[in-house]
Amino acid sequence: MKLAVEELEAKAKAAKAASRKLAHLPTEVKNKALINIAESLVEREGEILDANRRDCEDAKASGMGDAMLDRLMLNSSRLQAMAQDVRTVASLADPVGEAFDARVLPNGLRIERWRVPLGVIGAIYESRPNVTSDISSLCLKSGNAVILRGGKEALRSNSALARVIKDAAQAGGVPSDAIQFIESAEREIVSRMLKMSENIDLIIPRGGEELVEFVAENASIPVLASGVGVCHTYVDRTADLEKAVVIAVNAKVQRPTVCNALDCLLVHADVAERYLPMIASEWAKAGVEIRCDERVLRILSSFNPAPASDSDWGKEFLALIAAIKVVDSLDEALEHIERYGSGHSEAIITEDYSAALRFLEEVDAACVYVNASTRFTDGGQFGLGAEVGISTQKFHARGPMGLKELTTYKWVIMGSGQVRP
Amino acid sequence: MKLAVEELEAKAKAAKAASRKLAHLPTEVKNKALINIAESLVEREGEILDANRRDCEDAKASGMGDAMLDRLMLNSSRLQAMAQDVRTVASLADPVGEAFDARVLPNGLRIERWRVPLGVIGAIYESRPNVTSDISSLCLKSGNAVILRGGKEALRSNSALARVIKDAAQAGGVPSDAIQFIESAEREIVSRMLKMSENIDLIIPRGGEELVEFVAENASIPVLASGVGVCHTYVDRTADLEKAVVIAVNAKVQRPTVCNALDCLLVHADVAERYLPMIASEWAKAGVEIRCDERVLRILSSFNPAPASDSDWGKEFLALIAAIKVVDSLDEALEHIERYGSGHSEAIITEDYSAALRFLEEVDAACVYVNASTRFTDGGQFGLGAEVGISTQKFHARGPMGLKELTTYKWVIMGSGQVRP
Repeated sequence: MKLAVEELEAKAKAAKAASRKLAHLPTEVKNKALINIAESLVEREGEILDANRRDCEDAKASGMGDAMLDRLMLNSSRLQAMAQDVRTVASLADPVGEAFDARVLPNGLRIERWRVPLGVIGAIYESRPNVTSDISSLCLKSGNAVILRGGKEALRSNSALARVIKDAAQAGGVPSDAIQFIESAEREIVSRMLKMSENIDLIIPRGGEELVEFVAENASIPVLASGVGVCHTYVDRTADLEKAVVIAVNAKVQRPTVCNALDCLLVHADVAERYLPMIASEWAKAGVEIRCDERVLRILSSFNPAPASDSDWGKEFLALIAAIKVVDSLDEALEHIERYGSGHSEAIITEDYSAALRFLEEVDAACVYVNASTRFTDGGQFGLGAEVGISTQKFHARGPMGLKELTTYKWVIMGSGQVRP
Repeated sequence: MKLAVEELEAKAKAAKAASRKLAHLPTEVKNKALINIAESLVEREGEILDANRRDCEDAKASGMGDAMLDRLMLNSSRLQAMAQDVRTVASLADPVGEAFDARVLPNGLRIERWRVPLGVIGAIYESRPNVTSDISSLCLKSGNAVILRGGKEALRSNSALARVIKDAAQAGGVPSDAIQFIESAEREIVSRMLKMSENIDLIIPRGGEELVEFVAENASIPVLASGVGVCHTYVDRTADLEKAVVIAVNAKVQRPTVCNALDCLLVHADVAERYLPMIASEWAKAGVEIRCDERVLRILSSFNPAPASDSDWGKEFLALIAAIKVVDSLDEALEHIERYGSGHSEAIITEDYSAALRFLEEVDAACVYVNASTRFTDGGQFGLGAEVGISTQKFHARGPMGLKELTTYKWVIMGSGQVRP
């Protein structure tokens, strides 16, 4: 244990030193390193898949379920997809170096802000090994050193990936200490990382609610967290019901296992009798299980619906399940969203200008929609290129986070002898 | 104790509810409330000064020193200055509502970001009672509710100020729960505040290093902290020495008790013999005590200088004291600053273009200067109007923080039926 902590401290210190150089690395060097990484992930497939096979065998032996095993498992085509993602990062604009808010003050001082990397990012993540290449490439492109701490069950896979990535980055001219991988599986190591304000500038937890909460609770350094998405779509009394069906089907069915999928449908009482059978029939075709309040149960009785329990409101289902509730007014919809939403993505379907405006203004969420599917909440869809995650906190970044969110700025003041009067 | 915690929880909940209304309050209502507050601070002078007198008497009886007593003490002219500061906040542009990054995506979705308040700010501060009006007015203008928790020794003063401010704000049309004051002097209350992620969005600690560290260590919600300023001015071998004297005098002498004042002067060996006597003589006139490395001691022997101890490097003096060191190169200066600086404000005095550029690029601080006094690091001087503080963290905001830094944004997506393919 003592040894593992010492190793962590040494690696963090080395990462900090490397970050000073990384901050000034030309974009072309970073891009070359990224292309190298993409190529190496495919070329060194053998050692990566071999390590992954051993992880998968152990996981199976210890009784890991099929869904989790599938997340852990790598193969040629998955490695190729990971390499492609790294190439995408290489193709994105470099956020570092942008100058903004430039002004000349009345006393002649030139003042502007320069975008710079944060420094050292600590990434703490769970089973999926692709996070290793994902986070490494985003950090590298944004000029940050990174300390990777993956899940215990993927230790060999992540270690092999990190080795391949580190070698390729170094061959491309990146300081060798810029990418650090923590081998120790001790839980205590995570707690230590969360307190290393000297050498780590930001912690990114990638994983389930429990990990994210543990990190928020214990970190004394800043955290960039992707929270859960409890997403509502509200069908207003003036909604175009055909559109409302297409949108609600897309929001629930197109990819039900992700954070921006619909969890709860709110329907205005004036259109409930007409709209509910329309959407219920489409959802039934797609295999969506519905959990309904009393009024919905009555209207949809022929669909054999299940009653919603209290815990179904405000629940992130991550599956083909939706809660449905009838509301008597926009106000009631807004109150329900305020109470049960997680501040991720919320939508109104309406043709009423004032209702749309009120919804946009009053809903306190990272992304608020009129007449569109919440499934668009995604860095790629929003035009940010790669995505670090989707923030449900309000500090530093909200909603989809791209490369820019891994940077900060410095104030640059150019004078000719000015002093303060 | 239990009662105090319950009171805190009730107040936080009420503040959260008020923040929903506050977020949509028109600028003119907020400005009217701010003018009301400014007027009330003067009109209700009697009850404020009476409360303050009792705080001061108790403080004196308990042996508080003169400097601290002076910070605690209010009088008519100080109240008028506080009122004037509130008027200044009223005159600033409202950051809330700004729309930015507006685009139309290829699928026709209109996407933009709207600037919105953070929600509820928890302010934890120490003796100076003017922080009560200061933070309240900044929060109000930026559309945030605020929970104020001042120091024990200023409890009566802060309580009276909060009452006056709350009354005036309410009379101006602000929800009565938007400004909450915590009466309890229990230390435990602060610990509780730092964990109230449900109802507090941001903690602002205003006070000494110990308070700021306690908050960073214990908060599970975001913190916007002003750190210490250990500021260097480096006189390069090509510096215009006349300018370098004027700048170093200003940086050290103009207001030595603040965070952006010079703490350490670094001088290139090539100009040390000429420059050091020039600055030493000017500083001597202003009463600056100098603490010098061996080479400086030798050059300035006729000035009777004190030797620097190890702890003088990286020390924030907040007084007419400066450390001085001779360096052999720009590299050595950069290394010294990296090792001892606190990431606040750092300056180079040079006529060498490449040295200036390297300094701006490589020094990792909130504010980096060429040929100007570090005393300019200030929201007012930078044109931000009022100042929440000066951040030495990199997350969310760096350097002087104005009203905008008390806001976040939401993504607004306006569609016409779009779904994700």
